[in-house]
Amino acid sequence: MPLHPDRLLPPDPTTRAIARRLYDTVAGLPIVSPHGHTDPRWFADDQPFADPARLLVVPDHYLLRMLVSQGVPLERLGVAPVDGGAHETDGRAIWRTFAAHWHLFRGTPSRVWLDHTFETLFGIEERLTAASADRTYDAIAERLASDAYRPRALFERFGIEVIATTEGALDPLDAHRKIAASGWGGRVITTYRPDDVVDPARADFSANLDRLGAMTGEDTGTWAGYLAAHRARRAVFKAHGATASDHGHPTAATADLSTAEAAALYARVRGGGASPEDCELFRAAMLTEMARMSLDDGLVMQIHAGSWRNHAPSVFSRFGPDKGFDIPRRTDYVGALKPLLDAVGLESRLTIILFTLDETTYSRELAPLAGAYPVLRLGPPWWFHDSPEGMRRFRRRTTETAGLWNTVGFNDDTRAFPSIPARHDMARRIDCGWLAELVATHQLDEDEAAEMAGELANGLARRAYRL
Amino acid sequence: MPLHPDRLLPPDPTTRAIARRLYDTVAGLPIVSPHGHTDPRWFADDQPFADPARLLVVPDHYLLRMLVSQGVPLERLGVAPVDGGAHETDGRAIWRTFAAHWHLFRGTPSRVWLDHTFETLFGIEERLTAASADRTYDAIAERLASDAYRPRALFERFGIEVIATTEGALDPLDAHRKIAASGWGGRVITTYRPDDVVDPARADFSANLDRLGAMTGEDTGTWAGYLAAHRARRAVFKAHGATASDHGHPTAATADLSTAEAAALYARVRGGGASPEDCELFRAAMLTEMARMSLDDGLVMQIHAGSWRNHAPSVFSRFGPDKGFDIPRRTDYVGALKPLLDAVGLESRLTIILFTLDETTYSRELAPLAGAYPVLRLGPPWWFHDSPEGMRRFRRRTTETAGLWNTVGFNDDTRAFPSIPARHDMARRIDCGWLAELVATHQLDEDEAAEMAGELANGLARRAYRL
Amino acid sequence: MPLHPDRLLPPDPTTRAIARRLYDTVAGLPIVSPHGHTDPRWFADDQPFADPARLLVVPDHYLLRMLVSQGVPLERLGVAPVDGGAHETDGRAIWRTFAAHWHLFRGTPSRVWLDHTFETLFGIEERLTAASADRTYDAIAERLASDAYRPRALFERFGIEVIATTEGALDPLDAHRKIAASGWGGRVITTYRPDDVVDPARADFSANLDRLGAMTGEDTGTWAGYLAAHRARRAVFKAHGATASDHGHPTAATADLSTAEAAALYARVRGGGASPEDCELFRAAMLTEMARMSLDDGLVMQIHAGSWRNHAPSVFSRFGPDKGFDIPRRTDYVGALKPLLDAVGLESRLTIILFTLDETTYSRELAPLAGAYPVLRLGPPWWFHDSPEGMRRFRRRTTETAGLWNTVGFNDDTRAFPSIPARHDMARRIDCGWLAELVATHQLDEDEAAEMAGELANGLARRAYRL
Repeated sequence: MPLHPDRLLPPDPTTRAIARRLYDTVAGLPIVSPHGHTDPRWFADDQPFADPARLLVVPDHYLLRMLVSQGVPLERLGVAPVDGGAHETDGRAIWRTFAAHWHLFRGTPSRVWLDHTFETLFGIEERLTAASADRTYDAIAERLASDAYRPRALFERFGIEVIATTEGALDPLDAHRKIAASGWGGRVITTYRPDDVVDPARADFSANLDRLGAMTGEDTGTWAGYLAAHRARRAVFKAHGATASDHGHPTAATADLSTAEAAALYARVRGGGASPEDCELFRAAMLTEMARMSLDDGLVMQIHAGSWRNHAPSVFSRFGPDKGFDIPRRTDYVGALKPLLDAVGLESRLTIILFTLDETTYSRELAPLAGAYPVLRLGPPWWFHDSPEGMRRFRRRTTETAGLWNTVGFNDDTRAFPSIPARHDMARRIDCGWLAELVATHQLDEDEAAEMAGELANGLARRAYRL
Repeated sequence: MPLHPDRLLPPDPTTRAIARRLYDTVAGLPIVSPHGHTDPRWFADDQPFADPARLLVVPDHYLLRMLVSQGVPLERLGVAPVDGGAHETDGRAIWRTFAAHWHLFRGTPSRVWLDHTFETLFGIEERLTAASADRTYDAIAERLASDAYRPRALFERFGIEVIATTEGALDPLDAHRKIAASGWGGRVITTYRPDDVVDPARADFSANLDRLGAMTGEDTGTWAGYLAAHRARRAVFKAHGATASDHGHPTAATADLSTAEAAALYARVRGGGASPEDCELFRAAMLTEMARMSLDDGLVMQIHAGSWRNHAPSVFSRFGPDKGFDIPRRTDYVGALKPLLDAVGLESRLTIILFTLDETTYSRELAPLAGAYPVLRLGPPWWFHDSPEGMRRFRRRTTETAGLWNTVGFNDDTRAFPSIPARHDMARRIDCGWLAELVATHQLDEDEAAEMAGELANGLARRAYRL
Repeated sequence: MPLHPDRLLPPDPTTRAIARRLYDTVAGLPIVSPHGHTDPRWFADDQPFADPARLLVVPDHYLLRMLVSQGVPLERLGVAPVDGGAHETDGRAIWRTFAAHWHLFRGTPSRVWLDHTFETLFGIEERLTAASADRTYDAIAERLASDAYRPRALFERFGIEVIATTEGALDPLDAHRKIAASGWGGRVITTYRPDDVVDPARADFSANLDRLGAMTGEDTGTWAGYLAAHRARRAVFKAHGATASDHGHPTAATADLSTAEAAALYARVRGGGASPEDCELFRAAMLTEMARMSLDDGLVMQIHAGSWRNHAPSVFSRFGPDKGFDIPRRTDYVGALKPLLDAVGLESRLTIILFTLDETTYSRELAPLAGAYPVLRLGPPWWFHDSPEGMRRFRRRTTETAGLWNTVGFNDDTRAFPSIPARHDMARRIDCGWLAELVATHQLDEDEAAEMAGELANGLARRAYRL
C-alpha cells in the first residue's frame, strides 16, 4: 500500500494536526544510531548486498520466527543448518515463500518497516503477495546491483550522522580500522560488548579468557590480570570510537564483592564448569566492575537484561542462535541493581542505560529508579516492544515519574540496515503523536512539545551516549 | 437503555465509520462456540428454562460476586447452602434484590451482556431498577414460557453453527448421545476435560480413578493402564464430537518424565494423600502426556492456567464451587512450559491453545512464545478479561509480536446460554474497533482489515479447533 | 501557560463535550480528603507559611528526586543534611535552581499540579524559567505574607469539608487538641498509623514500646498488654476524630496466629533485634489483629503495601527519609491477604482499603478480590500512579471486575497543602474523561455517568471512610 503521510499519527483531527506539525520539524533530522548490530564490514568493504531474500528475509529473526510459528521450516527460509544440511539456497524461492505469508505480518512492526523500505528505498507500492512476489524480487534485485545501493551510499542517503556497531571483547576490530583508514567520511563506531569473556556459563568461556590474555598480554589467570585485560580492551575500543559498553545478561543481578571475594570467585569460574550460582554471581559482580571502569574511562554502560536465549534447544543445536527463539522473562531491577547502585548510583559522571523486556517494570521499577538515581537512564522500548503500541506504553508509563530527560531517545538496535530509516521514522511518528496528545489536552504548549520532539529524534541520544 | 447501533465502537468519527463498515460485514455471521460450559441436557431435553432469576442471576458467578462484595448474602440471591440451609426460593424476590443493585454493574461487561439480552431477546428497553423489577420479571417470564424460548429454538435463533460443551472424563455423555439420537440438526459437541482424574489434590481423586478403571475396563492401578484409560475416554469423547481437550490447572507447570519416573510418581499419587509437590509434578507430567496423545488422536489441547479456585474456604464449604471466589494469580509460562515445548513444541500437527488470567504475560511471554513455537496458539482474553478493555489490551499487547493468525478468535466460555449472542457481538465490535484504528492510522488497508474481521468472527476458531 | 478550561479532558470533540458537562457538575463540590500528610500544626497555629521555596520545593519529594536524578545535589535544593552540614538556605537561590530545571517536569503530574497552583492560588500565568524565577518568587512571597494565605484561610478557600492527617501511635495529638479547643470550624481529623510500634525492624521499636506502655499505662512487656495499649491509643485517636487507621508495610503479608503463637512471637520481637522472618511475621499478624480491633471500634483500615523505603542507604544516612528514594516492588495480594481474609473477609461491618504500587495487580488480583470479599475496597492510584495516565489505567483495569462502588474515590495523600485543590481537580477531570468515554461508546447513559462523577468527587470517600 502507498505510504500515507499521516500514518501512525493519532486519528483525532485536532491531535493529528498537532502531531503532523511536530513531525514535520523532525522528519528530516539526521539519524543518530547509538546502539545496533549492523556489520562494520559492510562499510569497510562497501560491496553490494546479496539478493533480496538474503538481505531482507534470511537474517531477520522477526520474520523467521513468525513464519516458523505458522509451520514454515527454517530450511525453506534459507537458513542453513549448522551441519550444512539441506536448505533452500535460491533467493527467489525464499522470497516467494515469504511473499505468500506476508499477511501474517499485518499489525506488526515488520509490516510497517518493510512497507516503508519497499516504497522509499525500492520504489515498490504494490502489495506483496504470492502473485507480486517475482515483480518485487526483480525490482529489489535490480536496485541492489547498482552502486547507489552499496552500503556507504545507503549510509549517506539515510542521513546517518553516526552509527554504533557492537563487537565482542575479542573482536580484532579490523573492519573499524579499515573504515578509519579508508578516508570515507561516515562515522561508524564500535561498542564494547564483553559477554563472551564475562559469562562463565558459555562453553567457550575458558578458551575466550585464554585468547583475552594473549590479545592483551595480561595474565587472565588472576583476577587482577583479568581486570587489566578488560581495561586494555576498553581502551582499544575507545580508540575505535566506542563511547559505550553493552552487557547482555539473563538477569539484572549485580553484586559488589570485596577484592578477595572476587578473586576467589574468579578462581572458581576461570576454568569453566562453574555452578549456575557462581556464574550468576560472577556476571553480577562484573556489572559493578564495569561500572567502576566506566567511572575511569567514561564509557556509557548499557544493560540489556531479561532474555532467555535459545529457549528451544533443538532449534539452537540445529541452526544456532538468533533464530527467533529468545523469550523474555520476568525481570527484577529494584533488588537486583541495589548492590551496583549502592556502590556508584549517585555518581553524576557515570551513565547507565537500562533496557527491559518486562514492561511491568516500566512504571513500578524503572521509572522510579531512573527518576531518582543520577547514574540511571532508561533505554527505549526494546525488541518485542520496539513497535507502535510498545512505544506508547513506554512513554505513558515512564514519563510521569521519570520525565523525558531520564530517557535516551531511540535505538534502532538492528542488523537490518535497510530498515534503519523506517525504524527511526516510526519512532518519530509515535513520539510526535504522544506529544500531540499532551498538547491537545493542554498539558504542554506546542513549543515545548516541539523541543521535546527534537530531543527524542536525536538530541537525547547524542548527549546520553556522549556522541 | 436502548441499544445504540454504534455502541462499543471508537468515538472518533473517522475511526467509528471504518469500524461500523467492518462490523456490518461480520455482525450476522454464524456463531462458532468452540469452548464453553452450557449444559448439554438443555439441548437433549429441550425443556423450557425456569424463571428469570434462576436463568439469569442464580447461576451467574459474575453477578453473584459483585452483589456479595457489596454485602448481599448469597442466600438472598437464591444460592442454596450445601447443607440445604435457608435461602431465598422465590424467583421474583431474587430478581428484586438483583434489580435494586443493578447500578453496581455500570462499566462492567455484565451490564453490556444483559442490556443486549434484555432488548434483543426479551424486548425490554427500560432501565432495570427497583421500580421496574416486576415489569421486567414478568416480561421475561412470559417469554420463557413460550416454545420459541426453549433451548433448541434459541440455539437456532442465535445462529449457532456449532457449540462445544465441557465434560469431565467420567461423564457418561448421555445428553450428547440423546442429542445425536434425536435427529435435531443442532451441532453440540463435547470436550474432554480430565481434571477430576488428573489432579491428585482433589479429595475424590482416588475414587475417580477407580471409576475410570471400571468405566474403561483398564487397570488404573498401573501407569500403563491409567494412560490406556485416558486413551479410551478420549476416543469416546471424539465419537461424541469432541475436537479438543481442556485442562484447568493452578499453574502452567509441565514436566517430561521417563516412563519409570512417571510410573513411580503415579504409584505415589494413586491412592490419594500425595504431597503438594507430587501433585504439582503429576499435573505437570500429565500435560505433556496429553500433548503426546493429541499427536496421535488429533484433539486440540487447551490449557486454562492460573486460577486460585475457592480462595475463600468458608464460601466453598457453605456453598460449593463457582460462586465468584476464584482469584487469578501470577503465572509463569516461559519456564513452566519448557519441558512440554522441548518435547513437542515444534510439531506442526499439534495445536495447544494457551489461556491466562495474568495479563502481564501477554507481551512478555505468551506472544513471544506463540510467535515462535508452531504448536502454540493464544486463546482469547479469559474470564475477568473477557471485556471491552480486556479485549483491547489483549490485541494491543499480542498482535505486534504474535500477529493475528497465532490467535484463535473468540470463546464465549459461558454457562449463561442467553448471553451467547451478546458476548459474540461484544467481541466483534471491539475487534472491529481495534482493526479500524489500524486502518485509520494507515497500518492496514480496509480490505485487509475486513478479512481479519471475518477471521476473528469465526474463521480462526473453525480452523484452530478443527471444526 | 494559562490553564485551559478543557485541560486533561479527552481530545475527541464528542467525548470532550460530555466530559465537560460531567466535570461542570462536580468542579465545585467540597473537597473530602480522607487520607494525607498535612501537618495539623498548620491549622492549630495558623502561622503564615515560609518562603515559596520552603513551601513548594524543599518538602516535595516528587520535585527533589527529579532534580537529583539530573544531577542537582539535595544540598542545593535546601535540604539539610542530618549532621547539619552545608546546604543552601536562601529561598530565592533554591527557587532559581528549581526554575532553571522546570522543563524536566513536562509530562509529569508535578507540572499539572504546579501550573494549577501558580495560576489559581498565586495569579501567575507566565511560564516558570530561569528568567522568570525572580518574578514568580516575588509574586508568591508577597501573597504568602498576607492573612488570606494563612493555613485556615486557605483551608476555607479550598472548600475543604474535612481533612485527615496521619499521626504515629505515640503522637500526643496536641495539635488536634488545640484545633478542637480553638473554636475554628474547620474539620481536621487524625488517623491512627501505628507502624512505629508494629514494625520490629525499626531501630527504635523497643524504645517505642516502652513509650507506648508509659503513655497508656499498659504493660507492653506482654502480648495482652501490648494489644490493650493499641486499643487505648485507638480510642484516643477516635476521640480526636479518627475514622481510620493506616498501615505502611513493605509487603501485604498477613497472618492469623493463635494467642499462644502470637505471644511467643511478641516475646521474641519485643526487645528488638528479631530475625527478618520474625519481623515480617509480626507485621503480618498485626494486620489481622488490627482488623479484629476495627470490628470492635469501627475504624476503617488502610493498607499501603509495597514500597522499598530508603532504597539508597547513603541518601538516607545523610538526609533522612522521604527524599524520593522509596522504590516500588512487586507485591502479591492473593496469597498474602488470605490469612486475614479467611479470618474476617466476609464481615460486612469491616472496611479494608487496599493500595498498591504494583499496577499489575489491578486486574489480576485487586479487582477480583475486591469484587468478591465484602470487607475489601480499592484505594485510588497511589503515589507514582497519582497521575493522568495512572488514574486512567486504574479505572480501565479495575472497573470491569470490581465496578465503581468497590473503590473509594480520591485521596490527595499529600503534605503539599497548596496543591490539594489541584490534585482533586486533576482527579475529577480524569474521572469525568473516563466516564465520558463510556457514555460516548454507549455503555452508560449520561445521567448514570453524572451520578458516578459525584460519587468519585466525594460521595464514595465520605461513605468508605465513614465521614
